[in-house]
Amino acid sequence: MPDYQAPLRDLRFVMDEMFDFPGHYASLPGGDDASPDVVAAILEEGARFSREVLLPLNQSGDQEGCLLEGGDVKAPKGFKQAYQQYVEGGWPSLSAEPEFGGQGLPHSLGMVLSEMICATNLAWGMYPGLSHGAADALRHHGSDEQKATYLTKLVEGVWTGTMCLTEPHCGTDLGLLKTRAIPTDDGGYDITGTKIFISAGEHDLAENIVHLVLAKLPDAPEGSKGISLFVVPKFLPDADGNPGERNGVTCGSLEHKMGIHGNATCVMNFDAAKGYLVGAPNKGLACMFTMMNVARIGVGIQGLGVTEASFQNALAYARDRLQMRALSGPQAPEKVADPIIVHPDVRRMLLTQKAFAEGGRMLVLYTAQMVDVVEHGQDAAERERAETLLGLLTPIVKAFLTEVGFEATNEGVQVFGGHGFIQEWGMEQLVRDARITRLYEGTTGIQALDLLGRKVLMSQGETLKVFTKEIHKFCQAEADNPALAEFIKPLAKLNAEWGELTMGVGMKAMQDREEVGAASVDYLMYSGYVTLAYLWARAAKQATEALEGDERAFYQAKLDTARFYYQRLLPRTRAHAAMVQAGGGSLMAISAEDFGLGFEI
Amino acid sequence: MPDYQAPLRDLRFVMDEMFDFPGHYASLPGGDDASPDVVAAILEEGARFSREVLLPLNQSGDQEGCLLEGGDVKAPKGFKQAYQQYVEGGWPSLSAEPEFGGQGLPHSLGMVLSEMICATNLAWGMYPGLSHGAADALRHHGSDEQKATYLTKLVEGVWTGTMCLTEPHCGTDLGLLKTRAIPTDDGGYDITGTKIFISAGEHDLAENIVHLVLAKLPDAPEGSKGISLFVVPKFLPDADGNPGERNGVTCGSLEHKMGIHGNATCVMNFDAAKGYLVGAPNKGLACMFTMMNVARIGVGIQGLGVTEASFQNALAYARDRLQMRALSGPQAPEKVADPIIVHPDVRRMLLTQKAFAEGGRMLVLYTAQMVDVVEHGQDAAERERAETLLGLLTPIVKAFLTEVGFEATNEGVQVFGGHGFIQEWGMEQLVRDARITRLYEGTTGIQALDLLGRKVLMSQGETLKVFTKEIHKFCQAEADNPALAEFIKPLAKLNAEWGELTMGVGMKAMQDREEVGAASVDYLMYSGYVTLAYLWARAAKQATEALEGDERAFYQAKLDTARFYYQRLLPRTRAHAAMVQAGGGSLMAISAEDFGLGFEI
Repeated sequence: MPDYQAPLRDLRFVMDEMFDFPGHYASLPGGDDASPDVVAAILEEGARFSREVLLPLNQSGDQEGCLLEGGDVKAPKGFKQAYQQYVEGGWPSLSAEPEFGGQGLPHSLGMVLSEMICATNLAWGMYPGLSHGAADALRHHGSDEQKATYLTKLVEGVWTGTMCLTEPHCGTDLGLLKTRAIPTDDGGYDITGTKIFISAGEHDLAENIVHLVLAKLPDAPEGSKGISLFVVPKFLPDADGNPGERNGVTCGSLEHKMGIHGNATCVMNFDAAKGYLVGAPNKGLACMFTMMNVARIGVGIQGLGVTEASFQNALAYARDRLQMRALSGPQAPEKVADPIIVHPDVRRMLLTQKAFAEGGRMLVLYTAQMVDVVEHGQDAAERERAETLLGLLTPIVKAFLTEVGFEATNEGVQVFGGHGFIQEWGMEQLVRDARITRLYEGTTGIQALDLLGRKVLMSQGETLKVFTKEIHKFCQAEADNPALAEFIKPLAKLNAEWGELTMGVGMKAMQDREEVGAASVDYLMYSGYVTLAYLWARAAKQATEALEGDERAFYQAKLDTARFYYQRLLPRTRAHAAMVQAGGGSLMAISAEDFGLGFEI
Repeated sequence: MPDYQAPLRDLRFVMDEMFDFPGHYASLPGGDDASPDVVAAILEEGARFSREVLLPLNQSGDQEGCLLEGGDVKAPKGFKQAYQQYVEGGWPSLSAEPEFGGQGLPHSLGMVLSEMICATNLAWGMYPGLSHGAADALRHHGSDEQKATYLTKLVEGVWTGTMCLTEPHCGTDLGLLKTRAIPTDDGGYDITGTKIFISAGEHDLAENIVHLVLAKLPDAPEGSKGISLFVVPKFLPDADGNPGERNGVTCGSLEHKMGIHGNATCVMNFDAAKGYLVGAPNKGLACMFTMMNVARIGVGIQGLGVTEASFQNALAYARDRLQMRALSGPQAPEKVADPIIVHPDVRRMLLTQKAFAEGGRMLVLYTAQMVDVVEHGQDAAERERAETLLGLLTPIVKAFLTEVGFEATNEGVQVFGGHGFIQEWGMEQLVRDARITRLYEGTTGIQALDLLGRKVLMSQGETLKVFTKEIHKFCQAEADNPALAEFIKPLAKLNAEWGELTMGVGMKAMQDREEVGAASVDYLMYSGYVTLAYLWARAAKQATEALEGDERAFYQAKLDTARFYYQRLLPRTRAHAAMVQAGGGSLMAISAEDFGLGFEI
């Protein structure tokens, strides 16, 4: 069975040494609660919970899957008990506001724990995971009564939440949705329609489920401007706020999926289900975006989690498995063969995982600080800057970390050779689970359009400049540091090129809007590699300065991983830059009909 | 359910227009039998068989899997009947020699059919697929008696074959194997040991199974020099050559796998099973390589097959699925939204699949001609040249076509969005089935060492020069052709760079052998992209010349796909070249212990 240890030492490096989280927390209102001791204790307890409670349920949950019987969904064995422990441990309320029963700790701390959950049981993690987004939407857009009724229960974790967006004929294009909301005499609405791909739509982990549902009012404008958001509980709360009458929302079927078998992905039928408007009529999409941004970063963290999980187990296998001798001669002559970690190509795969796991962790925590500042920052200018950067980085966190997470989990399989394809080893499950992360909450293609179109080009490049300026300053400050020259020189060059590529696409897009879509995914991947290069350079700086201390081996390994990233992963920017520059001509030439001339008769 | 049409028009383009298969077949002894009419009829019948018989069993076979009961293995429903039809149709004997009951048609023809089988039912295709390698080993190394007893049955298809190499503790490193062969009084051997990952090791499709087994004689030298090959039938043939006494070889269990569920992957226990030596004692590995080379190209064809299958279904979905409007304005204003094929990024994914499918088909057929020449060529110099090129290209066919096949099937999922993750659509099965192709018959890493170490560097680069000279000549011949300048210029540059990169690695490897492993996979991928670039340039030449004819749309689409390949895929060589040049320093720096300092306490 796969093992997992939360990367506590690496978290300390990123949080304390690179990004001064102690200082950051101290600067937030109520930040005293997040003292270094408290943070350390929470991380250790999270490490224990994920390893001891969630990890043992990961493979069994995959094999067992969920069961729909008479309208009820049973999650795999042990999932409910693990969720109870999670609630009893106070985990759901960790970073929620005290006025709704939360512990008021910074949001970033929850994101760190989320990595551990995703690394040990991605499918389980989605039951509580979806609640965060639902709670956020209610917190920002719900009425006081809705907050009192639903938010407190979500924060406690005794109820869970869902996001009901997708319908059979529309996912990305929510303007097409058909679910209707008809006003009723009591100020509520009857919601009728079918939603698909509803994660945790029905299950037995919690006593009630709070669905946040997009639907159209009778007089709604066409398209995405006519969408409203509703809260639709599985059980209507009674006078005491406890689950009362069963509402008309039921699970029609469970999807058969490639992975995340332990999570119930439901077709949800709304049959004149009682619902309540959240926010203003026809403003549902904006409200839903509140949930989606949180969810998108959450999916990026899923990519990070499975990367780390795959790395740890591939490393253990590579140290243990004896096969062939090193090309330069036996390294373990006392054994029948050398452990495969002696082979450079096995190391290339392990280092790819390591560089993406550690680099991804830096990116998530760098972003997490911005989330804290946006939510609780005391300075308006700082808040605005954080919001801008967060907007820029969210699609990168989501798409880049899931793309490289899929690659990394596949490298894990590859290290195991044929055994990687066998279920018992657990490596192929990580690939199957990782596969969904490139798709849901907006595919990589959608994230790329968000990045290049909405964030970068719509701001005339100003949003990007906020970030490239920061990188530029860092490069300038370290320009004369010989120990960092191998990082700073290529980074400065890439940072300048990033701006040029952006300008180039922007110019082309003024002639032809399709050039945005033609460049977008390569642009996003390019941006991801440069972003990680910046963070790896900062890590190298930190490591270089600490080399002479007590933990030389740790810092040397960090520095060596930064080198590997620069020498063996960052050159991928050469391909992405060339493809961005190539433009869309070759994409648009063939007509839809002529695409199939090789096989269609 | 996924659909499939054999790419007959594209096959005509590659076989008749690009590579003059009619002339090639006419030059082979007995080539008259492979007249254009016969070839066309066989391809059409193969197209029908794969689409009507194999395709309908692909999803059901995946869901059902194989069943082990009382030592017997039942393949999924319909597999046995399909195999009977296959045998009755004379397919197994198509390209086998007439003296053993074969039809004597060129081997290349069997490879074309193999693509169709792999595209429609990869798991089923492995039952007859393994027989080819077993037959080849017997044909080249078996005694006359062994040929009479086993080869004829394999050629007829009434018996199937296996390759029994891997053991629990050794896959790549066969020198470690423990299975023993003890001579018995009757001139045979008692074989005892456990083999794992034996595809089609036990099943109910055929009346007997012929295992080709690697084992060690009592006095064998250590390591890979002490391995012998044995033929071990499931049922010992009786005096009439029919299945007689049950031999001591049984299926201990079936593996639970990520994909190819329809194929029985067996743990095979040999308990003093009666076996017969094939070839000379201790020369088993060389005999097995005969099987492995055939099998490796076969796995490359699997990569091609799933690529085509995924492409065809993604294309159909992209034409049908309505979602969003084109960025440049509505393309199908009469519909609620545009079909997603209008979006450039969807086209990028489809074109990636198309370029790899059509380019992969060129590579397979280019290689297939060499297989024919090696087997039946009349000219010794031509045969030698073909053998050299085949040796060079085999690891590229195997590893490159499976790496890009995995990418292409994942693009297929991505085109479907969330629906791609749902089993019913069949797209995720193609990913799971494709995943094994990067692993078995030697992982990508092993193929890369074979290419760079054994084929290229051990020949001092001479083997590579045979190919780069051919490319050079083509570039020179077309140097003044303005219609091809966009292809010839970059191709000539890459072709020269290929030699320089090789020289660079060779120089480094003289100082440090580990540099071979450090460069190998990037070198292989680079080589694959350049090889396909050469073939796409030839396709572009052919298409350009035919543009003014009747089928303008077909040739224009071919030319446009070549352009896409050059502009949007070939730039990946920039990354691979840089990584080859970066060398192995950053791979070897961290010690095995220090790899885990971020999480190990």
